Amino acid sequence: MPDGQRADARRNYARILAVAEAEVASKGSGASLEQIARTAGVGSATVRRHFPSRRALLQAVSRERIAALSASAHGLTGAADSRAALLQWLGEVVDYCVVARGLAAALAYDDDGVDPVHGNSCAATLEEAAGPLLRHAVRDGVVAADVTVGDLITLAVGIVLATEHHPTPAARAHRLFGLAVAGLSPPGPF
Amino acid sequence: MPDGQRADARRNYARILAVAEAEVASKGSGASLEQIARTAGVGSATVRRHFPSRRALLQAVSRERIAALSASAHGLTGAADSRAALLQWLGEVVDYCVVARGLAAALAYDDDGVDPVHGNSCAATLEEAAGPLLRHAVRDGVVAADVTVGDLITLAVGIVLATEHHPTPAARAHRLFGLAVAGLSPPGPF
Repeated sequence: MPDGQRADARRNYARILAVAEAEVASKGSGASLEQIARTAGVGSATVRRHFPSRRALLQAVSRERIAALSASAHGLTGAADSRAALLQWLGEVVDYCVVARGLAAALAYDDDGVDPVHGNSCAATLEEAAGPLLRHAVRDGVVAADVTVGDLITLAVGIVLATEHHPTPAARAHRLFGLAVAGLSPPGPF
Repeated sequence: MPDGQRADARRNYARILAVAEAEVASKGSGASLEQIARTAGVGSATVRRHFPSRRALLQAVSRERIAALSASAHGLTGAADSRAALLQWLGEVVDYCVVARGLAAALAYDDDGVDPVHGNSCAATLEEAAGPLLRHAVRDGVVAADVTVGDLITLAVGIVLATEHHPTPAARAHRLFGLAVAGLSPPGPF
């Protein structure tokens, strides 16, 4: 592709992404791709070329927040209290998902690997970033060895999705996540 | 309202409900109310009179399954192993929500009481039906005293919502629900 065309494509992508971010922020994960195309002044086919699926769109919109959560996981890794560090990070995942419309939905998509155009999927990126945090907690015996970062994220995401109609969604989500951490009916210490 | 008009309204409601059930089964909780009106051969205003909100529509569509889950809760109440009985019932809630599109979304709506036309909301109905089941488990010391049926249902629903894109949603949902029952990082026995 000649340089001029490549620069055009990049500008197009940036404009569509900005419109998509605004649309998902106001309408949530069901935002209309046709509306995004109209507002960005491009055809639906152009939007679909950049974002072949709703999943791809939501993941692109969520990229900055995923980067922030990844940075936080790196910062917490190695803390003396590995349980507190892991739970703080998961609390941040809950907070981000409550506030950022579309993020929970982006993370709810099953991770089937790497997006060939824009890098890892959101869930895969977080799983990699929080892997050491979880491994320290498992090493310290405060999380069962078969639990994965994907398990933890999916539970957090599900709780956010199930509480979004609640009058105080953040408080409700944190209460339920606390219950899941403690166990609804734990069989005893492991 | 004269008897003839009342009978017409009942037939209208039954036809719209049947169409809505088919539409939610095939399209999920985002089913189009306009499409339901077209298929039922009525105006959008008629659909909205019977179902003033998406929530009302999803709850009406879910009524039979809610009745079956309520009956199951009644049948399990008083079992010798109160923990096993409660967990079996919650497993059935997960199963129903995985299979019946729209049910998880109907249960995710915060319960703000009674629908004046068609009785209790889905969540309120289940909370009442499973109250004794939970109280027995609390009495036997296998569930913390501050846990509510609403907490348990919302966790189950969230897990189903977060796993619906997974290749094997039922297996994934049950695994995550098992983790929440055991506790992601239990502080010890209570």
